[in-house]
Amino acid sequence: MKKEQETKELFEDKLHEECAVFGVSVSTNEAVGLTYNGLLSLQHRGQEGAGIAVVSENKNIICQKELGLVTEVFQNGKLKKLPEGNVAIGHARYSTTGTNSSANVGPFVTEFLTGRIAVAHNGNLTNAKELRDELKSVGVQFNASSDSEVVSKLFAYHVVKQKDLMKGVVKAANLLKGAFSIIILVGDKKLIVIRDKYGFRPLCIGKSEIGLAVASESCALNTCGFELIEDVLPGDVVVIENGEIIQRLNRGELQEKYRLDRGRDKRAELGLCVFEYVYFARPDSVIEGLSVYDARINMGRALAKEHPIKADIVCGVPDSGLEAAIGYSQESGIPLASGFVKNRYVGRSFIYPTQGERDSIVKIKLNPLSVNVKDKIVILVDDSIVRGTTIAKIVSSLKKAGAKEIHLRISSPPFRFTCHYGTDVDSEDALIANKMTIPEIAKNVGADSIGYISLEGLKNACKKTKLPLCTICFTGGDCKWEQKSTLEDVN
Amino acid sequence: MKKEQETKELFEDKLHEECAVFGVSVSTNEAVGLTYNGLLSLQHRGQEGAGIAVVSENKNIICQKELGLVTEVFQNGKLKKLPEGNVAIGHARYSTTGTNSSANVGPFVTEFLTGRIAVAHNGNLTNAKELRDELKSVGVQFNASSDSEVVSKLFAYHVVKQKDLMKGVVKAANLLKGAFSIIILVGDKKLIVIRDKYGFRPLCIGKSEIGLAVASESCALNTCGFELIEDVLPGDVVVIENGEIIQRLNRGELQEKYRLDRGRDKRAELGLCVFEYVYFARPDSVIEGLSVYDARINMGRALAKEHPIKADIVCGVPDSGLEAAIGYSQESGIPLASGFVKNRYVGRSFIYPTQGERDSIVKIKLNPLSVNVKDKIVILVDDSIVRGTTIAKIVSSLKKAGAKEIHLRISSPPFRFTCHYGTDVDSEDALIANKMTIPEIAKNVGADSIGYISLEGLKNACKKTKLPLCTICFTGGDCKWEQKSTLEDVN
Amino acid sequence: MKKEQETKELFEDKLHEECAVFGVSVSTNEAVGLTYNGLLSLQHRGQEGAGIAVVSENKNIICQKELGLVTEVFQNGKLKKLPEGNVAIGHARYSTTGTNSSANVGPFVTEFLTGRIAVAHNGNLTNAKELRDELKSVGVQFNASSDSEVVSKLFAYHVVKQKDLMKGVVKAANLLKGAFSIIILVGDKKLIVIRDKYGFRPLCIGKSEIGLAVASESCALNTCGFELIEDVLPGDVVVIENGEIIQRLNRGELQEKYRLDRGRDKRAELGLCVFEYVYFARPDSVIEGLSVYDARINMGRALAKEHPIKADIVCGVPDSGLEAAIGYSQESGIPLASGFVKNRYVGRSFIYPTQGERDSIVKIKLNPLSVNVKDKIVILVDDSIVRGTTIAKIVSSLKKAGAKEIHLRISSPPFRFTCHYGTDVDSEDALIANKMTIPEIAKNVGADSIGYISLEGLKNACKKTKLPLCTICFTGGDCKWEQKSTLEDVN
Amino acid sequence: MKKEQETKELFEDKLHEECAVFGVSVSTNEAVGLTYNGLLSLQHRGQEGAGIAVVSENKNIICQKELGLVTEVFQNGKLKKLPEGNVAIGHARYSTTGTNSSANVGPFVTEFLTGRIAVAHNGNLTNAKELRDELKSVGVQFNASSDSEVVSKLFAYHVVKQKDLMKGVVKAANLLKGAFSIIILVGDKKLIVIRDKYGFRPLCIGKSEIGLAVASESCALNTCGFELIEDVLPGDVVVIENGEIIQRLNRGELQEKYRLDRGRDKRAELGLCVFEYVYFARPDSVIEGLSVYDARINMGRALAKEHPIKADIVCGVPDSGLEAAIGYSQESGIPLASGFVKNRYVGRSFIYPTQGERDSIVKIKLNPLSVNVKDKIVILVDDSIVRGTTIAKIVSSLKKAGAKEIHLRISSPPFRFTCHYGTDVDSEDALIANKMTIPEIAKNVGADSIGYISLEGLKNACKKTKLPLCTICFTGGDCKWEQKSTLEDVN
Repeated sequence: MKKEQETKELFEDKLHEECAVFGVSVSTNEAVGLTYNGLLSLQHRGQEGAGIAVVSENKNIICQKELGLVTEVFQNGKLKKLPEGNVAIGHARYSTTGTNSSANVGPFVTEFLTGRIAVAHNGNLTNAKELRDELKSVGVQFNASSDSEVVSKLFAYHVVKQKDLMKGVVKAANLLKGAFSIIILVGDKKLIVIRDKYGFRPLCIGKSEIGLAVASESCALNTCGFELIEDVLPGDVVVIENGEIIQRLNRGELQEKYRLDRGRDKRAELGLCVFEYVYFARPDSVIEGLSVYDARINMGRALAKEHPIKADIVCGVPDSGLEAAIGYSQESGIPLASGFVKNRYVGRSFIYPTQGERDSIVKIKLNPLSVNVKDKIVILVDDSIVRGTTIAKIVSSLKKAGAKEIHLRISSPPFRFTCHYGTDVDSEDALIANKMTIPEIAKNVGADSIGYISLEGLKNACKKTKLPLCTICFTGGDCKWEQKSTLEDVN
Repeated sequence: MKKEQETKELFEDKLHEECAVFGVSVSTNEAVGLTYNGLLSLQHRGQEGAGIAVVSENKNIICQKELGLVTEVFQNGKLKKLPEGNVAIGHARYSTTGTNSSANVGPFVTEFLTGRIAVAHNGNLTNAKELRDELKSVGVQFNASSDSEVVSKLFAYHVVKQKDLMKGVVKAANLLKGAFSIIILVGDKKLIVIRDKYGFRPLCIGKSEIGLAVASESCALNTCGFELIEDVLPGDVVVIENGEIIQRLNRGELQEKYRLDRGRDKRAELGLCVFEYVYFARPDSVIEGLSVYDARINMGRALAKEHPIKADIVCGVPDSGLEAAIGYSQESGIPLASGFVKNRYVGRSFIYPTQGERDSIVKIKLNPLSVNVKDKIVILVDDSIVRGTTIAKIVSSLKKAGAKEIHLRISSPPFRFTCHYGTDVDSEDALIANKMTIPEIAKNVGADSIGYISLEGLKNACKKTKLPLCTICFTGGDCKWEQKSTLEDVN
Repeated sequence: MKKEQETKELFEDKLHEECAVFGVSVSTNEAVGLTYNGLLSLQHRGQEGAGIAVVSENKNIICQKELGLVTEVFQNGKLKKLPEGNVAIGHARYSTTGTNSSANVGPFVTEFLTGRIAVAHNGNLTNAKELRDELKSVGVQFNASSDSEVVSKLFAYHVVKQKDLMKGVVKAANLLKGAFSIIILVGDKKLIVIRDKYGFRPLCIGKSEIGLAVASESCALNTCGFELIEDVLPGDVVVIENGEIIQRLNRGELQEKYRLDRGRDKRAELGLCVFEYVYFARPDSVIEGLSVYDARINMGRALAKEHPIKADIVCGVPDSGLEAAIGYSQESGIPLASGFVKNRYVGRSFIYPTQGERDSIVKIKLNPLSVNVKDKIVILVDDSIVRGTTIAKIVSSLKKAGAKEIHLRISSPPFRFTCHYGTDVDSEDALIANKMTIPEIAKNVGADSIGYISLEGLKNACKKTKLPLCTICFTGGDCKWEQKSTLEDVN
Repeated sequence: MKKEQETKELFEDKLHEECAVFGVSVSTNEAVGLTYNGLLSLQHRGQEGAGIAVVSENKNIICQKELGLVTEVFQNGKLKKLPEGNVAIGHARYSTTGTNSSANVGPFVTEFLTGRIAVAHNGNLTNAKELRDELKSVGVQFNASSDSEVVSKLFAYHVVKQKDLMKGVVKAANLLKGAFSIIILVGDKKLIVIRDKYGFRPLCIGKSEIGLAVASESCALNTCGFELIEDVLPGDVVVIENGEIIQRLNRGELQEKYRLDRGRDKRAELGLCVFEYVYFARPDSVIEGLSVYDARINMGRALAKEHPIKADIVCGVPDSGLEAAIGYSQESGIPLASGFVKNRYVGRSFIYPTQGERDSIVKIKLNPLSVNVKDKIVILVDDSIVRGTTIAKIVSSLKKAGAKEIHLRISSPPFRFTCHYGTDVDSEDALIANKMTIPEIAKNVGADSIGYISLEGLKNACKKTKLPLCTICFTGGDCKWEQKSTLEDVN
């Protein structure tokens, strides 16, 4: 039992992204297939459940969703059971709570007075409970316990109340607080794309000969044959029909048209979650003009400048530290070497916990490459340290493999504060950087030294991004955010 | 492909019941286990999906439901994942439409302003679409396409609107039209039991040392250790808490208290669906004071009086005609004999359709017992004839097994009219009794004679029942019922 | 844990048949489909695993087998993966030991010097270990731990050694001791059918326009469109090719041709297992000229004569006592009534064991029909009593349902001795009739009286059978059979 | 259908290794768990089936095996069903033929006169059919169609014939022709380790405080806490008991003791399969003294010397070309860059084949990292080209991503000849290098140039290996090897 706990902790000792969204509006009848492929390419953002909703010929919305990886959810011909169509959206989910119920998987389909919508949502609302309570107070009822159901029903509610699709959507969008990148599929074959005013979560649009696609990350656009044409502007509402953008409401227009103040918050800490560059996004994605790969190379370079040390080799922890390690090597001139081989087959599977070896589980997943590290002074680069349990085992196994010294370099500042916008750390007590000084952390994880990138250095590494960056998890901000309320389980 | 169609038709050539409901309020923490056992005993009423909802310690409602038989839905330890509790409800579903989506399985949990309810519902509403439209017009939204979701949300809506649980429930109950036997599980550990004013579908209450149980049929009470104490009165609302009935609103009280007219319709044809006695219910159930077993024996006796014939043996079609055959034999003095052996393992499983034998599929399911029928004049008793396709194959296989003459005796009158209260015959065109005269039917199915019980005979066989009986499927009634509207699929 | 044990015992408190075999040689390419249907109709003889082997176009033998019911093993299109062919055999297995490994499911395919054979085997060898040891001593190797593998390899060994298919088969058949009904599929599209010299287990041949079928019971012939033409003679070897019997070696011929003495043992107790008539076989089967249904009716009649008693009704325990109850009623004139309703959905599934009700599990499976038994003196007929645990719960539940008196009538004599030919009772200590007198048994199970049929009565009821009957389980015989040795598990 | 074919080809356009073997003899009862972990670490060598055999307390051998990945075969507690023990072996299988039957998965357990053995086998015999025929001629029978069954039965046969375990094992080992690395588990808790005289497939031994482990590759030793102590010498038979090597028969001793000539073949082309260094083995393995990682770095360096070209970046095709790319970069000074992001979730899963994009499938698996390749002259390094279909799509997608020029560098010589020792290329016609000149290949796959490493260069890169290398797939050798015979399917 204790061992299972240990195994679990190993998998949990990383931040987790909430979700991925994808949508297409194309001239061919391949919307479902493209969405499936898109979700495959966004699987790293959410592995607990997946779903696709498509508009059928008779303008009905049909949805298939379940717990499991995208390939599992749609295996055995289940993909073909969905009707063909030209407009579809998809969702891949990572749940922060223990409630892995199929009822919480997206997209959420809601039927209301004048139609049906399906909603795919990435992000964490800070006012989900309030919205839910308000909706309940005006008669809206709920079946599940996810934020996404709140989002779906809020939109449906306001569409009906405003007696106008766009007015309702804009109204609802303005009530959402927190992080949200949303794609709404409307029964009349429209896609409505919405992003919160800070742009916490990425959302972008791609174009091809057959139409448009919307995705959490540009890597999914590329793999599906679309070329990234723009990031959705924070605060924008974009309407897509027949493969074209037919309406685009930005803050200015919104104020004019719907008399709403969607002006940016003044607090500098809010913006695109910097962890998208640090860890969440796939390196082949370009977010807000900045290549994730480049950003990580820059972080590694900055680390090399901020925390130089004489060493024989630079190694990245696979896969999270690989690019920063390249950057460190490039800047420092210290040769890059593979420090580990990662087992591509184990994923979250059971590993037998042997008695003798404390670090056996981590070694099955990540085996030190002795040939490279033996008798070497190793600079080991990773993206972040959360609880510190996994990195301690990695360091230990590297030492056993013969590494003489291990100098940890972390491409993000000490992670000290919980975040209500999308990372799943329940309590700041769990965060090692909140409990220890940096030398204490080094000692605790067995490293000979630790160097964290400075906040300035990180920001500088990402300076080409078009958006301000949210760095609250490092700074705590100057504000006390309301506690994200936990919705109670149904299933 | 054609053969698969043929196989499917064989399974479909019976009327299908809609659902089963079960609920318990007990002093032990076995509510979930008892509900599971209860659903096992009601599985004959619905085999497409099953679910259980239970109130947890902290008064939350947790629900587990899925497509499949009860044993399948809760296998592999899934039953134990539900929290222990003293109040739970369960649902087993048979869908009349092709939409076998887990989203349509009950119970339906709805969270609203002041709490959560779970609803298990047996019956067919005739105004589901209207209610749904009305609810949508006041802002209620939908996720699935089953009647039961409408029921659940209607109750939630009115509970909120009336600002009182009981007032809301009564109000909502009065808006439902058609057939409904409903158990509502309330977060504060109440069970609310509701039955439509005609009592179309059975619903009864049982008592044991540890508390009360509510079930579609009394057989489930017995198997779970409860003794049948009453049938829920048509039009009644019964509230159960801590294993006791704490409130009981009947028509008189309702009129007084909530000023609602729930007086019975004058049309004599409406009442308890007579097919519960003829076919749906398990013979060990007692419904409205009349044992289903006795009722069927009586039907067989009546048939013997109405349609006597000289014959060697009386056989029932397993399992639907077995009891009526006993009655026929008792009345006529013609010895009872088993005419067939039913394969207990095939259920709805695939049977290989061979080329040569037209009736091979039916023989795998139901093999004639040559030793009993050879060179015999056989009286073959069944409960009803819907399309006539299956009985034709049964008669043919009996003749091949050597039966000299076959005289069909049917324990219900010719089935001529579709019903919007719970049987799943789409079109009257499919009904053989609607297209042919009785001699034509005999010829068509290959029988030497057919005798249907008279309506009078049937009513007389059931005369001990405390309720009027609905016999619209035989008479058509004097009213044109609105077409039950089909809700469009989401999943 | 204790409860699971209890549940298990309930299922185990019946004798278990070992296996079913089926084979076809037809002119169409439906051999696989027919074998599948045949196994469906023999599923009652073995529910733990199933398999089909077929000869492909190029005279190769291809086999598909797995743990599970026939419908489970061949679901999801697995039936279609087998090549089409005109000759196939099938096997359904019930294992007496705990080793439910797919490696032990039949048919067993063996490739040897001159070809391939597949063997389907029903019966228990008494010299399996000896044969295995002897085969091992001449170099034969084993992969699994079932008797059937021994049979398969023995045949292969002697075919090679004799350098002649038939000579080898006959030689091997003569080495087998105990009970065996075997169908061998040979790569050159022959079926070889073998039955031990006592005819312990049934085996019969049916004919249709398209060819021949061989089956454990005639019910499978009928359901697949074949007409029973003969029971395989004990000691015979029958060769089938192109849908016809091409060779038929009986004892006389065998002696002449192969100089082997296969004369019957003088001990009168050996012969066809009488439990085939009492319990194992399906009532629609005809075995050795005697209808199983008729035999059971006769047993019931004999019981009525031997153990008359004044009573209100006669009930059979479903399904094992139903026919004998009919016979008892016919002879005694006491009316037949259904005493229980059997749940057709639970099978071996989990039933929740509630605390209060000791007999809850048996009631979920078999619910008393109070309407019939209340205040009645009931004659309850069953086929046999093994441990007595289940019948005690049945009697108890019937009493709780209001039965005034219960008089058990058992259509077989007291079951006192273990059997090495096919029933799975490990130890005579477990047998209630071995530990108690009949009055003690009555008291133990709560019955007001028990009457067992006499051995004479049973034999008389089966007097139309063409074979002597083995009744060792009642008499113990005058010989000490060697203990059937348990083969050790591989998988 | 055509598209499915296309998808399949993509997965097939790599050489495939046959199998992995693993075994332990330890003082703790963790043998099964360690073997499970060992197989996890060798999963890259075989993904179609897996199994573990363990010696139980009573010296019986129990085996569990099935189709699927290691994690799938032993999920849902199936690992715990195996008894605990101190000696176990495991097998992971890749089948070259279409016969994915569980009957062909290893280990193979054989029971014979004097005991039981289980055999795990990696390699391809060239005389499997002959051995099988010979064994059949002396009475051995077969159930499945894999080489490994032949190996298992051959050993069992000779152990019996020689009346001595070791003599039999040595005798049998000497009859095997081709490639084989074998671990035999003997019922008396010995492990016998055998490697063919050329050492085609790797096999090594590791030590820890608790005992010894044997594995196909040293990476599995490391991850399970064992330290590599030696590679099994080609032609050796090593016996392990109680965690120690108790006997070690090498060629000299064998000649003396058993008078067998196991001298090396003179042909220089035979030896350790060079593809183990080029592609099969995990980079963290050390084979015959040479680190696989180092070998690949060396190959990259050699390529840089042999085929220098001016370029902007060096990219490796993930994961097969990554190390050679590092070497190329180190030697040439041209910076290394990631050219692609590999999707870690798709594996062999279904990818929707869109109409427009010819290369969509490959892009889902391997998406170009535009940021790195755009407007760049790219040196693209991979390990080999088989059919050329996949690399063509990779090149095309890289060009679409903006690469200006693409210069392919292949770390093995042109692959021209089929091999009967373990690669699964059926026909030389399929090999692009057999049909085209190098410039033609370049044109065909869309590359601006192709440079293959020379045979000399490759050998030089691997010069630290202790064994001669087999390079027949490049040279064809001077001998005509017998065609490996295909055994016919049973299951």
